[in-house]
Amino acid sequence: MRWEDGFIAVDWGTSNRRAYRIDADGTCAAEFEDSGGVLSIETRDFPTQANDIRKRLGDLPLLLAGMVGSTRGWVEAPYAPCPADLDDLAARLCWIESGRTAIVPGLSLNGTGHCDVMRGEEIQLFGAIASGLIPPTTLVCHPGTHNKWVTVDQGKIMGFRTVMTGEMFNLLRSQGILAEFLSRDVSLGDAFREGVRRGLQRPVLTADLFTVRARVLLGSLARDDASAYTSGLLVGLDISVGLELARGSNFIVMGRPELTRLYAAAAAEAGRTCQVVDGADAFLAGALALGSKLT
Amino acid sequence: MRWEDGFIAVDWGTSNRRAYRIDADGTCAAEFEDSGGVLSIETRDFPTQANDIRKRLGDLPLLLAGMVGSTRGWVEAPYAPCPADLDDLAARLCWIESGRTAIVPGLSLNGTGHCDVMRGEEIQLFGAIASGLIPPTTLVCHPGTHNKWVTVDQGKIMGFRTVMTGEMFNLLRSQGILAEFLSRDVSLGDAFREGVRRGLQRPVLTADLFTVRARVLLGSLARDDASAYTSGLLVGLDISVGLELARGSNFIVMGRPELTRLYAAAAAEAGRTCQVVDGADAFLAGALALGSKLT
Repeated sequence: MRWEDGFIAVDWGTSNRRAYRIDADGTCAAEFEDSGGVLSIETRDFPTQANDIRKRLGDLPLLLAGMVGSTRGWVEAPYAPCPADLDDLAARLCWIESGRTAIVPGLSLNGTGHCDVMRGEEIQLFGAIASGLIPPTTLVCHPGTHNKWVTVDQGKIMGFRTVMTGEMFNLLRSQGILAEFLSRDVSLGDAFREGVRRGLQRPVLTADLFTVRARVLLGSLARDDASAYTSGLLVGLDISVGLELARGSNFIVMGRPELTRLYAAAAAEAGRTCQVVDGADAFLAGALALGSKLT
Repeated sequence: MRWEDGFIAVDWGTSNRRAYRIDADGTCAAEFEDSGGVLSIETRDFPTQANDIRKRLGDLPLLLAGMVGSTRGWVEAPYAPCPADLDDLAARLCWIESGRTAIVPGLSLNGTGHCDVMRGEEIQLFGAIASGLIPPTTLVCHPGTHNKWVTVDQGKIMGFRTVMTGEMFNLLRSQGILAEFLSRDVSLGDAFREGVRRGLQRPVLTADLFTVRARVLLGSLARDDASAYTSGLLVGLDISVGLELARGSNFIVMGRPELTRLYAAAAAEAGRTCQVVDGADAFLAGALALGSKLT
């Protein structure tokens, strides 16, 4: 079995996973997505899961990326420290079965004043650069449960900053005093933009969040707008973190379309333009680029 | 039945309630506390609950304060707008049974640029002033699920600001990526103080919270210190909101001892001193002062 004859790449996250069969000519011939994220799988069951993926997509080498390499996943793949490029990922693959099954390492940043970790976004980043979707020197915003702002320089990831915007919105929606106001889907209207403008002023979040409740009760915010306003507030705060890293330039927003649209709208409100890249395209390009380095 | 012959006052919150029988001489002759907060009671069951309280403490007039007057409580008691004093509360009592059962209104602030609401803290504030526990012109910090910073001037509440510090800590503890690190009780050691210092710098909370996870994974924060550090971060942010209102003066911290100790320690880290007042003492004084205005 040789990687150049084709392999399977899996973007294996906390809640979901998406698997692609990449053929010898570099095209994606088959794929599936399901809710088999690492939190739904017992550690001892990962070998069976890998077999099942091969049964569905072919008896090929497996390249696994994302939270599957975390303490909650199959095997903990030690982080590669920043700065790091695609060759560093290839050199530090965590081999579960030699030549046949590998986990992509995450990246760590352990600098003066800031510690951070990522797992899964790095392969998308390098894929987008390798395939020319984004320039090799830029700032990338990667929305998700934990948004990552990533600075890349000549193809190397130099550093990054995580903002837990998606998780915070989900927490507030699931329980607590604001939950009853936040059930609506987020629409990109005036309320969202008002929230973004407020977030860009960097208010103290725990203070500003309560005003959502007070304003609804006192009639200065429509109940139906509370969800969009709160999302805007969180995304605006997030963009304010990114603007510290942007140094005046514009940036790339890469990820799932339902999230990138929020960040693109918020960037416009901040007077920036950004290029939007689909995260699935970038992952596939990254898997192809990494797989081509393996034999 | 006359109020000067004695009455029952209930501090009836979201999760708990505490009831006091106040005798004709102004002393508290009997009391009980239980988990019968408004969220545990169906709206139609409040009359039965009131009867039960009278069975336990005596067939006396009932003065009810707190979330019992909210949309989730017995009857919604309209807010009294700021500025407001104790006479405004007395004039705006929401009478459920004339002369016999009343709900204390909450306070609202609907000013330019800031909307806010409170229910339950106001009676403690006025009680502390009426009984001389605090001066009539000061800044009061009232920690709880939703901390209130309250500016009082010559016995009137002029304005206030809510910071949902307690709720945020509880949300983060209950689910999400940080929950596994936050199960320990908060101790007032170096980690708490480090968190406070960071919070006083007003970082973007959603960004700083993720560093707790990264620092534990990368070894720069002990797992056992994560809870105290995160609590300190949230309280430090909260104190930074209060310092905007303090204008250089010191402040009062009033509430439950397990919370006031955190804020007193954080105030010291910010170079402020504060006087600590027990919230239960203040509530009893407030109920007595309000009850003495009723016939």
